[in-house]
Amino acid sequence: MRETNRIEGRNAVREALRAGTTIEKLYVQKGLKDGPVQTIIQEAEDRGLRPLFVEKEKLDRLSESGRHQGVAADIAPYAYAEVGDMLEAARKKGEDPFLILLDGIEDPHNLGAILRTANQAGAHGIIIPKNRAVGLTATVAKVSAGAVNYTPVARVTNLTRTMEELKEKGLWFVCADMDGEILYRQNLTGPIGLVIGSEGDGVSALVKKHCDLVARIPMEGDIDSLNASVAAGILIYEALRQRKYKNI
Amino acid sequence: MRETNRIEGRNAVREALRAGTTIEKLYVQKGLKDGPVQTIIQEAEDRGLRPLFVEKEKLDRLSESGRHQGVAADIAPYAYAEVGDMLEAARKKGEDPFLILLDGIEDPHNLGAILRTANQAGAHGIIIPKNRAVGLTATVAKVSAGAVNYTPVARVTNLTRTMEELKEKGLWFVCADMDGEILYRQNLTGPIGLVIGSEGDGVSALVKKHCDLVARIPMEGDIDSLNASVAAGILIYEALRQRKYKNI
Repeated sequence: MRETNRIEGRNAVREALRAGTTIEKLYVQKGLKDGPVQTIIQEAEDRGLRPLFVEKEKLDRLSESGRHQGVAADIAPYAYAEVGDMLEAARKKGEDPFLILLDGIEDPHNLGAILRTANQAGAHGIIIPKNRAVGLTATVAKVSAGAVNYTPVARVTNLTRTMEELKEKGLWFVCADMDGEILYRQNLTGPIGLVIGSEGDGVSALVKKHCDLVARIPMEGDIDSLNASVAAGILIYEALRQRKYKNI
Repeated sequence: MRETNRIEGRNAVREALRAGTTIEKLYVQKGLKDGPVQTIIQEAEDRGLRPLFVEKEKLDRLSESGRHQGVAADIAPYAYAEVGDMLEAARKKGEDPFLILLDGIEDPHNLGAILRTANQAGAHGIIIPKNRAVGLTATVAKVSAGAVNYTPVARVTNLTRTMEELKEKGLWFVCADMDGEILYRQNLTGPIGLVIGSEGDGVSALVKKHCDLVARIPMEGDIDSLNASVAAGILIYEALRQRKYKNI
């Protein structure tokens, strides 16, 4: 299974750009300056996509058809959703929105495992940032054990701006961090976004400032932290317990 | 980081065998029939270890010193503990034994992540079976983020026999499976062993028969299961919540 689907040739790449397909990487042969290539570069940049200028030899190696005509692109194998659609899905089910925000998860195995957990806990979607975070690669899809086909993932430019927009719609945010109140004492019911930090650094200071609560997972051991997808699982399932199994 | 530590040469391998070092693999050059080699083969077989007979070329490739003398072995980089020591550690801390049993976890990333979780939840140890399960490899140690140095792991020949011995010492066993009562309704306090099944098949029928309770993690999604280390984390932390944070 490839990490991404690769398309090659000027027509294919231009069509993908115009169709709004999510392009992970755009490769353009160094030195090419003819009109069609300039058009592709211009349309990519209009969409905020920075082309990678590579030697012809590199494109030849990347190419499967051998007919790349100086351009190729890696497109996301799975489509991203919109945050609004997640809220709409919650509304249709008559449930309070239950979203998972990932502040910089980089390991595809963690994103895949968290997708699986979010699906099983009945979350309405996952929100990830566009930069410095893994996207929906083939490895993520595989590790998610099919969850990628059911639980929507939205990719946003600015996580804190999205949080502020969601606050206006009634959501509040709880992040997992070491210096908060123990998670079992926090109220994780209602319209909520759970925020999980990155593998190395946890939740960034800026994102944390936009959270309403900080929940601490108890750690009684000798080491620093839990695996990111395990920590996410514990927080997500504590929310599920409070939302559906509190009185048993 | 190598998966295991390799030792080479007749003296080194014979010493390791006599010291009771955990040998993952024993390589013997095909066709060698002299006395010292026969002694090594005999002592290995007395310990239940089956030598791998390989061509001289393979040993030459495996060898780092270039002086393997027809024998080499991969030894476990980390030492295994005894189950009795885990009970003793619990007793010394004045705590009810809290053990994790893994019924056939094969992925080193899962074992490493579970070690990390067990350490952070204050479990006294992990018990794994000798066969059809990953042991303490260098990958496991690395993924455990140091937990391998603190939380003991015992490897037993027969998981159900160990369970029966532990029952006589007052422990009872809860396994995670789909057809049980919801885990939030189960009592996970007292001297307990939590049993987690393998990635593909869950808890085996025989092990399940030896469990006192079956706890179900709620799964409201569209897919089959959770990642094994995430499921373990949810069960282990629900036990921790009940044991230490029940009345908050």
